[in-house]
Amino acid sequence: MLPWKTLSRQTVYHHSKYLTVENHVVQLPDGRIFDQWNWMITPDYVNIAALTEDGRWVCFRQVKYGIEGESLAAVGGYLEPDEDPLEAAKRELVEETGYRADDWTYLGKYRVDASHGAGTGYFYLARGARDVGAQHSDDLEEQELLLLSRAEVEAALRAGEFKVLAWATIMALALLAEQKEIV
Amino acid sequence: MLPWKTLSRQTVYHHSKYLTVENHVVQLPDGRIFDQWNWMITPDYVNIAALTEDGRWVCFRQVKYGIEGESLAAVGGYLEPDEDPLEAAKRELVEETGYRADDWTYLGKYRVDASHGAGTGYFYLARGARDVGAQHSDDLEEQELLLLSRAEVEAALRAGEFKVLAWATIMALALLAEQKEIV
Repeated sequence: MLPWKTLSRQTVYHHSKYLTVENHVVQLPDGRIFDQWNWMITPDYVNIAALTEDGRWVCFRQVKYGIEGESLAAVGGYLEPDEDPLEAAKRELVEETGYRADDWTYLGKYRVDASHGAGTGYFYLARGARDVGAQHSDDLEEQELLLLSRAEVEAALRAGEFKVLAWATIMALALLAEQKEIV
Repeated sequence: MLPWKTLSRQTVYHHSKYLTVENHVVQLPDGRIFDQWNWMITPDYVNIAALTEDGRWVCFRQVKYGIEGESLAAVGGYLEPDEDPLEAAKRELVEETGYRADDWTYLGKYRVDASHGAGTGYFYLARGARDVGAQHSDDLEEQELLLLSRAEVEAALRAGEFKVLAWATIMALALLAEQKEIV
C-alpha cells in the first residue's frame, strides 16, 4: 500500500503553542489531489500507567474543561520542546504524583487523529512506583490521587469512567501488558 | 470538584466540516480567568470491534495520511449530522466490511482532547458478526480486511501495531469486555 503525498503545506491559523492549523494539498496513490486537507498541530504528550510495589495503580479523579463531570484519569502531560518522551514520562510521574519508578516499559506511540494529525501520545507502564514525596503539580485542575486495584481499574474501564480517549487507552494497554501469563 | 465555566466563545477559524476553531474565555473555580483557550470542533465518530460467529475480530490493514507506514485498524467512521451513534456504528460496520451483527454492546464515549475538545468517539462491541456481502466503502484509503484471532489482536496491541489512539482503545476495551469470566 502506497502512502499519500504532501504536495504543499501552509499555515492558515495559529492560536498558541497549543494549536496551529495547516492546510495541505495532498495526492492519493491513484493521482487524485485534495487541495483542502486540514492538519492540526498540537503538542505531543505522554501518559503513564504506574503500578506501585504493592500492586496498585496510581490514578486521579479530576475535572477537565472538555469533559462532563468528574473523570478517572491517568498520569500524563505535554512534552516540553525537544524533550525525550521517556524523560517526559518520568518527569510527569514525579511532578504530578510524587511517585518515582525504576522499571519502565514502552507501550507504543499513537496518533490522535489518523487523517488530520493533532499530535502523538507516547505511553509507558512504570512498575515498582513508590512515593518519594516530590509532588509539585502545575496542573490547573483540581485532582485527587487514587491508588486502585486491578479489579477497580477494570471495572472503571468497563463502566466508561476514564472519559478521555488517551486515559482509557493507557490503562487498558497496561492491564493487557500485565496479564501476559494469564491468557 | 467544580467545573470550569465558559464565559464566552467565538469562532476564530473555520476550515470545513472537519474543523472549526473557537476561542473560549473560561473561568476556573478559584476565579481565575483564561481569555485565550482554544477549542477544536471536529466530527464525532464511532469505532466498532466486531467479533464473528467463529470468534475472529474484523479489522483492517490500511494506510492513513496521518500515520507512518501501514497500520492495523478498527472499523469506524464519522457520524452523519444528527445521527444516533449506535445507528452510525451499524451503518459503518456494513458499509466498510459487508458484515452485519445483531448483538451490540456499548463500550462508552470518550473525549478526544480532555481540555480542548476535538470531538467524541463512541465505541461498540458487535458480537455474532456475519458477512452479508454488502460492503460499499467510500473510504479514500486502500484497505485490506483481516479476520484476527484474540491472540493476534493481543499481540498486535502489545506491539503497537494499531497506531491510532481510537483503534488501540476500541480493541483493548473489547478484549477486556470479552474476558469478564476469566479474570
